[in-house]
Amino acid sequence: MPLLHIDSSADTAADSVSRRLTGLFATIRKNASDPCRHRDLTAAPVPPIGPAYATLGRRVERAGLVPPEKVAALIETADEEREWALTQPLIAELLAADTLLLGVPMYNFSIPASLKAWIDRVTFPGAYVDPGTGESLLRDTRVVVVMARGGGYGPGTPREPYDFQTPYLRAYFTDLGVTDLHFVAAELTLAGVLPQLEELADLGAASLERARAAVTALA
Amino acid sequence: MPLLHIDSSADTAADSVSRRLTGLFATIRKNASDPCRHRDLTAAPVPPIGPAYATLGRRVERAGLVPPEKVAALIETADEEREWALTQPLIAELLAADTLLLGVPMYNFSIPASLKAWIDRVTFPGAYVDPGTGESLLRDTRVVVVMARGGGYGPGTPREPYDFQTPYLRAYFTDLGVTDLHFVAAELTLAGVLPQLEELADLGAASLERARAAVTALA
Repeated sequence: MPLLHIDSSADTAADSVSRRLTGLFATIRKNASDPCRHRDLTAAPVPPIGPAYATLGRRVERAGLVPPEKVAALIETADEEREWALTQPLIAELLAADTLLLGVPMYNFSIPASLKAWIDRVTFPGAYVDPGTGESLLRDTRVVVVMARGGGYGPGTPREPYDFQTPYLRAYFTDLGVTDLHFVAAELTLAGVLPQLEELADLGAASLERARAAVTALA
Repeated sequence: MPLLHIDSSADTAADSVSRRLTGLFATIRKNASDPCRHRDLTAAPVPPIGPAYATLGRRVERAGLVPPEKVAALIETADEEREWALTQPLIAELLAADTLLLGVPMYNFSIPASLKAWIDRVTFPGAYVDPGTGESLLRDTRVVVVMARGGGYGPGTPREPYDFQTPYLRAYFTDLGVTDLHFVAAELTLAGVLPQLEELADLGAASLERARAAVTALA
């Protein structure tokens, strides 16, 4: 499963810039007849973690470096069993991917809740650490984050300090041991939608064109 | 409904530092016989927003400053009706509160998905703007954010750049027009739980003591 393609926009493809851009990436890959797994976090939300997830996570952390295949032996309750059954397939899917493609609109200056639900569940203690060497199992995974923002939050803009999408995802994936990490942003996506932003529509269209070119180059 | 008390930890009160701290705040308030609304985002998760929420939000934004009581007149489909029925009570609850008390553990350097789901839904276009004056309807609301973090992320620590809890919530609430905004953090909460962090247990206990004092002073 070389490509894991995850979308997190609440919008359907017709209205979502991030979905159209990840779709472009996936289409180029499909033409290269690469297998692809598509996960739509709006159509099929990842359930929020519950108390048994937290309890199991702490038990695993106390035990030291436990690889995913040994977690089942540490489960003590039916609730923990259920939480692990929801979690283990997501971990396996991420570990099996050569490329993780993430479609991420900006909601309230940050990532959508649907994507945070995936992150909170998939980031299980020890799941991405080689128990023999202590190295990250994601060090060779290419991560391509395709972002869409209604306004302008790029470097040097007045709203840059309100961007909790790029620096957050950079910190998160870097901490996981990802090094092959790429960000593409389509900015001012609301400029073509809201009359009060109409004067910025040309800038928005140019940003989208640059994002399409960047996605094509990365695919 | 002067106090709106929201918890977002996946843990039960027995295991959750943020729940114990918000509980302390709420208990002091209850002794002052203040009415209180408690919303537990783990026991009763806020449903993730869907395409009809996004469509309705854009229609409202296009129409300019639309107060919540006039949104219903702009609804066009049954899906939009359902989304608004899930959203409007959360907005009314926030507008009715004198104090918003938020219990927020750090998950993967940021806020829990359960809290982001509340933010993504409650932040409906125009809901907190006085249509007459353009001023924020939350300018007199006191917001108290009570945070818990497994490690140390405070100012000056090596992990400070990984704190996407404090600066994010500060930016979000400031943008909403909140000015009476307070942050309390209990750090190193895992120091008493994980054997590998045992040498930091005293520091964690001291941080918790300071957080309890700060919460008591704010309540």
